[in-house]
Amino acid sequence: MKMKSVKELLEVHGKAEKESYFDWENGSFVDAEVFNAMKPFFLEKGYGNPAITHRIGWETYESYGIEKEKIANSLNVDSVNLALTFSSTESNNISVLGTTKLNKKRKKIIVSSVEHLSVLHAARALYDQGIKIETIPVSHNGVVNLDILQEKLDENTLMVSLQSINHEIGTIQPIKEAIEIVKDKDEDIYFHTDASAAYGRIHLDFLDLNVDFGTISSQKILGPKSIAGLYVKDGIRLKSIYEGQLSVETLSPDVEYMPLLAGFAKAVEIQFNKFKEINEYTLKLRDKLMYGLQTTIPRVEINGPEGHHRAPDNINLSFLGCEGEALTLESSMNGIFASSGSACTSRILMPSHILTAIGRKPEEAHGSFLMKLTRLNTEEEVNYTLETLPKVIKRIRSITGGIEL
Amino acid sequence: MKMKSVKELLEVHGKAEKESYFDWENGSFVDAEVFNAMKPFFLEKGYGNPAITHRIGWETYESYGIEKEKIANSLNVDSVNLALTFSSTESNNISVLGTTKLNKKRKKIIVSSVEHLSVLHAARALYDQGIKIETIPVSHNGVVNLDILQEKLDENTLMVSLQSINHEIGTIQPIKEAIEIVKDKDEDIYFHTDASAAYGRIHLDFLDLNVDFGTISSQKILGPKSIAGLYVKDGIRLKSIYEGQLSVETLSPDVEYMPLLAGFAKAVEIQFNKFKEINEYTLKLRDKLMYGLQTTIPRVEINGPEGHHRAPDNINLSFLGCEGEALTLESSMNGIFASSGSACTSRILMPSHILTAIGRKPEEAHGSFLMKLTRLNTEEEVNYTLETLPKVIKRIRSITGGIEL
Repeated sequence: MKMKSVKELLEVHGKAEKESYFDWENGSFVDAEVFNAMKPFFLEKGYGNPAITHRIGWETYESYGIEKEKIANSLNVDSVNLALTFSSTESNNISVLGTTKLNKKRKKIIVSSVEHLSVLHAARALYDQGIKIETIPVSHNGVVNLDILQEKLDENTLMVSLQSINHEIGTIQPIKEAIEIVKDKDEDIYFHTDASAAYGRIHLDFLDLNVDFGTISSQKILGPKSIAGLYVKDGIRLKSIYEGQLSVETLSPDVEYMPLLAGFAKAVEIQFNKFKEINEYTLKLRDKLMYGLQTTIPRVEINGPEGHHRAPDNINLSFLGCEGEALTLESSMNGIFASSGSACTSRILMPSHILTAIGRKPEEAHGSFLMKLTRLNTEEEVNYTLETLPKVIKRIRSITGGIEL
Repeated sequence: MKMKSVKELLEVHGKAEKESYFDWENGSFVDAEVFNAMKPFFLEKGYGNPAITHRIGWETYESYGIEKEKIANSLNVDSVNLALTFSSTESNNISVLGTTKLNKKRKKIIVSSVEHLSVLHAARALYDQGIKIETIPVSHNGVVNLDILQEKLDENTLMVSLQSINHEIGTIQPIKEAIEIVKDKDEDIYFHTDASAAYGRIHLDFLDLNVDFGTISSQKILGPKSIAGLYVKDGIRLKSIYEGQLSVETLSPDVEYMPLLAGFAKAVEIQFNKFKEINEYTLKLRDKLMYGLQTTIPRVEINGPEGHHRAPDNINLSFLGCEGEALTLESSMNGIFASSGSACTSRILMPSHILTAIGRKPEEAHGSFLMKLTRLNTEEEVNYTLETLPKVIKRIRSITGGIEL
């Protein structure tokens, strides 16, 4: 797509009178509180390198420790066991790629079929090193099959990587049971959980869970992007993926940047100080919006589980007879922003492997619509969407004839 | 070092009446102009994923293209040949590690002895893959020996990585000549230059230089950290180091973040719109400060070349009979912030491999003092340092007896 056509597109598109942003999965802004936490560190304090022995360096080191501890506390882990990285993608990669250096004899990695692409692709990249990847299937609600997990474990198993919550369909995985099964079989099998979609949504105590590695995300709790975290259990010496001059952090060279850390920590503070309140709030909005749309729009399917088995912030519906591109475009023109698991709704043209894994047919995946709810969403946005989206769907179906794709 | 001791240290340390910050090599803040360029993208615009097909995504894609083009223009390259990364460390790693996948037959990488650690360590990490590393020595001023480069080139040579300017001692390398020697020998040998310290200081035209890969840094031109760039010549398909969901950028998953990109682009705009003015200004301050200190303090040595062979922003002096930790500490207590190539001045306890490579004796490396100058430094800071640093050195020497370390 050329720049000019985007400009033209935007002119044609216009702007709706009201707007509802639900595409937090793919992009987010920060609120004034998080922004104000970053501001002084951009402009006037903590700009030294925390590894350098002068006053600005020490002040940075002190601030660094204070802010980082807020994040560690939210997981009930010690600050020294929390590494900062640039993204949850990097955290997932360090875990998956890094374990091959921890035990060179074992050659099997087990993942579920609904892991994030950063886990699946990192695992796949290990084929060349003679690593075998076993993929655990999931139920129609996306729940990992623990019996098959149990069967696949053997003395050749290096690691198991299972997400805590699925980022697309909101499935809360039986992660505690999974870890118990793995560790009961063999304490030496590493267990990694990608908790990016779970962090701040469900109670996570990495110590109590007895997990070896845990990925968390700043952006997914409305902190800034370009910073994330990786919990590493005491005594495990993971290696960084690439090489450089290490400073305070030892898993990701050059990652130390106070403004982003302070923003991350502020987002953590807000999310965890009001943990119950925020999650009850999004859950209420979720159910109102999800069931409201299900009731008013014909031929709708809910992707993923319902009730308390589903992440409180996740709505994923399939509008049959609609195509993802038409859905996101027509919604966008009406001020509603969400994404679809259809291949044609992003420039990368990848269909959702998750909808396929739960057995959705192409026509269902095509019409899928992912909306996430955060503390920054309002009841007004939900009401506006409840009024507007049925008309959008009707219009799309009237144009395409609601064809069975 | 425990948090408590840092707090105590800071209380004892106090704050000097005047301050001069010269440790831009290790940490930097941004000015109001760069900050204001980032602000709207944090809070209210361009927060979508540029790969997603809705209005917020398209707006982000449009802004992304506009801001990125400013950076590409500064190098006289096309935007599609500029990849964004999280750091110059990552850019260097993608180049060094990535070339092994471009040509699997060639097994030799050539670097200079004064490259950044991210280049040297990345190259060293390839030993396991049967890659041989050849290190080119440098002169007493840090200039890469082109005769030895010529000798080392052969049909087994995969790539050559040479910096454009040395980040510690300011040596401007004969990079154009080096590339000509390499490409005259064999067009298929890849040439990478780490231009982090050169970008914005000397004229760099990556197309005209005929370089294959070029690393640039945002932080080193007073943009935000956690974003950097890598130029990749047309037709070369480098691979990312780690795996994930790719969006607009294809070399570093998850790197798209408008606020940091906009800050980077603004820093580029300032640095390149006033290119001559800024570099003449820092050059004037550099010479005033460097020669002023050399004149007023006994037993001082300049590390690196002088005049126009030296980067306009770089001062690196060795105060004989002083130890780096005492130097940075005592300077810090007097409000002057710089770093030293001594092993004891950072928590990572690494001595400068660069001072060793140019033949500095331990006593000289111990007393080294690196100061960088930017458009944000003032003549007043320089004057204050000229007044104060001689007293600092005198005091250190009087305590230690100016011993030959």
